[in-house]
Amino acid sequence: MHVIIDLCVVPLGVGVSVSEHVAACQKEIQASGLEHRMHAYGTNIEGPWDEVMAVVKRCHEVVHGMGAPRITTTLKLGTRIDRDQSMDDKVSSVERRLAD
Amino acid sequence: MHVIIDLCVVPLGVGVSVSEHVAACQKEIQASGLEHRMHAYGTNIEGPWDEVMAVVKRCHEVVHGMGAPRITTTLKLGTRIDRDQSMDDKVSSVERRLAD
Amino acid sequence: MHVIIDLCVVPLGVGVSVSEHVAACQKEIQASGLEHRMHAYGTNIEGPWDEVMAVVKRCHEVVHGMGAPRITTTLKLGTRIDRDQSMDDKVSSVERRLAD
Amino acid sequence: MHVIIDLCVVPLGVGVSVSEHVAACQKEIQASGLEHRMHAYGTNIEGPWDEVMAVVKRCHEVVHGMGAPRITTTLKLGTRIDRDQSMDDKVSSVERRLAD
Repeated sequence: MHVIIDLCVVPLGVGVSVSEHVAACQKEIQASGLEHRMHAYGTNIEGPWDEVMAVVKRCHEVVHGMGAPRITTTLKLGTRIDRDQSMDDKVSSVERRLAD
Repeated sequence: MHVIIDLCVVPLGVGVSVSEHVAACQKEIQASGLEHRMHAYGTNIEGPWDEVMAVVKRCHEVVHGMGAPRITTTLKLGTRIDRDQSMDDKVSSVERRLAD
Repeated sequence: MHVIIDLCVVPLGVGVSVSEHVAACQKEIQASGLEHRMHAYGTNIEGPWDEVMAVVKRCHEVVHGMGAPRITTTLKLGTRIDRDQSMDDKVSSVERRLAD
Repeated sequence: MHVIIDLCVVPLGVGVSVSEHVAACQKEIQASGLEHRMHAYGTNIEGPWDEVMAVVKRCHEVVHGMGAPRITTTLKLGTRIDRDQSMDDKVSSVERRLAD
């Protein structure tokens, strides 16, 4: 099962700046080799369900390993079985309609 | 790693009523034996990370198996390593403050 | 436009415990007179769009007023124009299917 | 109060493809003149709270106006009072750490 997710990991109890922890998650995501795009409020990742979810788990492990006592993560997960659709397909499908 | 999640599975392409699909997810959650509480916009589930995430995956598999071509799920995931905290602890901790 | 929301306000930069800030939000929600139900990962609120969204804004104002430098909130918003449906209707519609 | 949001509007009861409705939301967002960036699972928007939330409401009105009987939206909302931070600041702050 192919999945496109939007992942936003928020460490609590580490002060107001969280960019160090977000960067550590980005490194995990990059190391996974999965397609991904960071935006201002999370990161889109796509790939096989188990691989993608393993990255989400590693993000929690890494951020706790950096000393964050608590994490609250928001995740959107999209699957479809009617046809293949990549992250880029989703964006270009909307952009084509906007261009019409 | 213990996790408390809030799960909201939304099937697309099945019409406007989704209660049949939500009920099928509830049955998967019940069958898991994990602690859970349904509310009007999702279901809280708690337990070991891998068991909880296996239920989320089964919900997608079951809902696709019922014919839904597409699913978009929203998930919150909370972990903490400073102390144990159950779903009921979270609620009662706020209720104690409200009672003060 | 009637809306059912699920609101989860997370203050950053205030330490690991956030129940004091969540309780302050609950007081704002109660003061609004809107129907609401707290669960372990947020609060369901229903009512007219503008009234409900005004409460969300006041939660941010109150939590910043308590000294939280940063807030990240997760919100789900459900509207429908085909028929009236309350939070309790949503839950009982799933429960009826589970009982069958 | 300045806010950065991540908005994902999902119409129900309109079939499996939702790009027409998402494009209509994009037009509303563009018409608002607010800074925004679309990604594969939503759109980041920033600006004054009331202006941003007015766009969210118009998205629901427009999508219902196109015939969607039901909408479920996921929204993240970030505010901070310790300093100004734009969407681009958030991304570049993580990218600087990744480059180190």
